Amino acid sequence: MVKAVVLSSGGVDSTTCVAMAVNELGSANVVTLSFKYGQRHEKELESAQKIADFYGLAHYVYDLTSIFAYSDCSLLSSSKEKPEHMSYADQIARDGEGKVSTYVPFRNGLMLSAAAALAQSLYPEEECGIWIGAHADDAAGNAYADCSVAFNESMGRAISIGTYELVKLHAPLNRLNKAQVVAEGLKLGVPYDLTWSCYEGGEKACGKCATCIDRLAAFRANGCEDPIDYED
Amino acid sequence: MVKAVVLSSGGVDSTTCVAMAVNELGSANVVTLSFKYGQRHEKELESAQKIADFYGLAHYVYDLTSIFAYSDCSLLSSSKEKPEHMSYADQIARDGEGKVSTYVPFRNGLMLSAAAALAQSLYPEEECGIWIGAHADDAAGNAYADCSVAFNESMGRAISIGTYELVKLHAPLNRLNKAQVVAEGLKLGVPYDLTWSCYEGGEKACGKCATCIDRLAAFRANGCEDPIDYED
Repeated sequence: MVKAVVLSSGGVDSTTCVAMAVNELGSANVVTLSFKYGQRHEKELESAQKIADFYGLAHYVYDLTSIFAYSDCSLLSSSKEKPEHMSYADQIARDGEGKVSTYVPFRNGLMLSAAAALAQSLYPEEECGIWIGAHADDAAGNAYADCSVAFNESMGRAISIGTYELVKLHAPLNRLNKAQVVAEGLKLGVPYDLTWSCYEGGEKACGKCATCIDRLAAFRANGCEDPIDYED
Repeated sequence: MVKAVVLSSGGVDSTTCVAMAVNELGSANVVTLSFKYGQRHEKELESAQKIADFYGLAHYVYDLTSIFAYSDCSLLSSSKEKPEHMSYADQIARDGEGKVSTYVPFRNGLMLSAAAALAQSLYPEEECGIWIGAHADDAAGNAYADCSVAFNESMGRAISIGTYELVKLHAPLNRLNKAQVVAEGLKLGVPYDLTWSCYEGGEKACGKCATCIDRLAAFRANGCEDPIDYED
């Protein structure tokens, strides 16, 4: 049976991806992988653990913090910048196409490479998929260049070649927008109440940062309410 | 001026690559990057530092040890396996084509991704090359799949796309064998006396492991003596 290492950030997209992998391969063949990379808070890691527990999966956590020590990305606790309270679409409309301040330098390349290393360590002679929940809205306007279909195709080829064709990259949400991602997840009964997306580390989600705005809209587009608590 | 981050392991190939980058771009535009990844000894890191000092370059060291915690690769201090005293060519002749026991799971993908992250952190709006000293003998017989031209082409595309076309991968030795690498380095006056390749951590190089055998042969093919000390 093919194995799977699913990148899990504790958010809506990657949790949907976890559910898809479990649905396709069975929980005995799936593990999740999260990263510390110097993010402003670790609430997302707690969510990733809860989701692994929900599905009965082994959950690995790698620490990449030192790699980003020289970056001033606004998502990092070391940065003086703070994430903006504006949707990605509005940021792109204001600033033009290209990198947003929450782009962490080549983070997805690093995370996928680390996942390939884990796959080849746990299953040196077996086929293993790496699943990532990158979706079309992430790559729109080139906000996150390392979320695009073209990026994942190239990384996928590099991963196949570099692992003797044993590890394959899966990005099943890469051509869906966030509303479509949520639609897939609702069909699979994803426990979205356990997820965390907000860039702030408050007790409740802020409802104002780019990722809160986008997830609220995605649930609304599906005619249902986001099950997590938001600040008033 | 274009910048360069050169992967430097302190060995013959990557040190040749450092010399080529300095020769092309000038030392003010070049930095080197080494990795702790749980290798059996850190003599190669001391050599990498000496080489950076020789050329007057800033030298960065990232620690990826925890990523390889689940691997039993014979190059890792955590493994019960030990590197063999046999050339790669002889290992391939005995075992057939494919992975050798010193293959570290997707290490080059991780190192290149970390270099891309460093490049985008140090020079977020500038063009920067990542230089890697992978050469043809590494990829021969698919001993190290993550050293092949095809691998580097795919990683190079992923790195370009994921960094908004600012970071480009250079593998100038990828079609040369080790004797040709040394020939290039001799022309540039590379301080090979400062390098370290041996998989063992002795005071002198062992002369018997795959990498000692290969470097001794490469100098011999150029009609000169390897300037480092070997055990009797």
